[in-house]
Amino acid sequence: MSASYFTQASIVGVVGEDFAQQDRDLLASKGVDLQGLETVPGKTFFWSGVYSEDMNDRTTLQTDLNVFADFQPKLPASYANQPYLFLGNILPSLQRNVHEQMKDLKFVGGDTMNLWIAQQREELLATIKDWDFLLINDGEAKMLAGENNLQKAAQKILDLGPHTLVIKRGEYGAMLFRRDTLFITPGYLLEDLFDPTGAGDCFAGGFVGYLAERGFDLHHDKIDVHELHRAVIYGSVMGSFCCEEFGVDRFRRLTRQDIDQRFDEFRRFTAF
Amino acid sequence: MSASYFTQASIVGVVGEDFAQQDRDLLASKGVDLQGLETVPGKTFFWSGVYSEDMNDRTTLQTDLNVFADFQPKLPASYANQPYLFLGNILPSLQRNVHEQMKDLKFVGGDTMNLWIAQQREELLATIKDWDFLLINDGEAKMLAGENNLQKAAQKILDLGPHTLVIKRGEYGAMLFRRDTLFITPGYLLEDLFDPTGAGDCFAGGFVGYLAERGFDLHHDKIDVHELHRAVIYGSVMGSFCCEEFGVDRFRRLTRQDIDQRFDEFRRFTAF
Repeated sequence: MSASYFTQASIVGVVGEDFAQQDRDLLASKGVDLQGLETVPGKTFFWSGVYSEDMNDRTTLQTDLNVFADFQPKLPASYANQPYLFLGNILPSLQRNVHEQMKDLKFVGGDTMNLWIAQQREELLATIKDWDFLLINDGEAKMLAGENNLQKAAQKILDLGPHTLVIKRGEYGAMLFRRDTLFITPGYLLEDLFDPTGAGDCFAGGFVGYLAERGFDLHHDKIDVHELHRAVIYGSVMGSFCCEEFGVDRFRRLTRQDIDQRFDEFRRFTAF
Repeated sequence: MSASYFTQASIVGVVGEDFAQQDRDLLASKGVDLQGLETVPGKTFFWSGVYSEDMNDRTTLQTDLNVFADFQPKLPASYANQPYLFLGNILPSLQRNVHEQMKDLKFVGGDTMNLWIAQQREELLATIKDWDFLLINDGEAKMLAGENNLQKAAQKILDLGPHTLVIKRGEYGAMLFRRDTLFITPGYLLEDLFDPTGAGDCFAGGFVGYLAERGFDLHHDKIDVHELHRAVIYGSVMGSFCCEEFGVDRFRRLTRQDIDQRFDEFRRFTAF
């Protein structure tokens, strides 16, 4: 849904029979291609948790994988020639399987989590080796690199395959590392931080969506790194909107104009 | 010492008889006026502590106030007409006493700490009421305002007197709030974070020093807020250098050229 503000997005995923028609309609209303959204008997994935007072930590109350437990992503034939692929956090071997079904990518990247870094390390390394970018949070970056200093951790991760590394730092913003550039942005200062759940995924949608909108080709010889920096800002913008209301509620009435206005705000509050 | 890279600085403080001549010479070599540096019988203030692995927290091992315990700042007559005053963290009533001895200030501001916010609240409020700027860290800002959201906390603090609020966030950077502007910068990404002790004070020196160098007048009708933003960057630059070596060691060979180069680096890694 986040990426749909920038480009025509297509989803691959699984839900159970409890998934509401109005939520399917919401996605469709944003132009999201739902051919790859599989519905199978059982219940949709469910998570609940409690955030700390400052919203920087959370405690999981309940995780029910439900239909997600046996999910084997199947790519609709019409998706195979899409130029951009973002692999959400799931078992690395499944990410690899989806990647292998794509035929003509301009860039590919994805997310992962502490569980896979700890328990599926070899599989994860074999998977991200072929990615253009890795998009993770600071704790995951330190864990993946086995290094507490972010600058050093980033250099180690750039040796693992991805030539572009985006590190999310929650309320403190985000960073982008490449051999030829470093970019750091502070986070947007929200007056009402209501629910940060999903902010990282919304960041990913803004980051990839903006680059797709620009027809960005990460494999091209001469890329404009400032486009990547702007993609980080759009990612930050989308993540910040996510936090303003519960779940995806803010996106029900969010417009592209709202997004571009907040992008301009980033320019103003970082100018010196 | 931090401010001395930008302007002629004059110090008010107290040391014991154990204070080394070479340290006095070091300050003098930077052009710091030492008339206000009092030497009294006893030992100099001493602090030691241990930092956490990620350097974001520290545990105090020992605090010996020594000669600092009975310190009553006395302003040399030659200081009274200086245009800029920064009040380091000390008992609020002593800060007020120093402030009252100054005759013709273009701006005045200072630092404080959790201890005074909790135990000297009324005195502290009476003191900062007359300041142009308050320079504290994020935890202190939340505590002073009684508000966990930084945006809301800042608005409450701007009601207390200072029209400019600078909030330091350690490795995550700094922010500047006024009714007419908001500025946020990420922190400098250090490859070797050796010792953050004193980084906040070095920030203050860079912030005030740069504004003094520019002849900045906070009371002027039309101020250029971007000068304040640049002062925050210079503060961040000085704080980052402080962290690279133990104590003030990095400043022994630091040049103004090093400082300006890092300022330019801030421009590059924040550009989009």
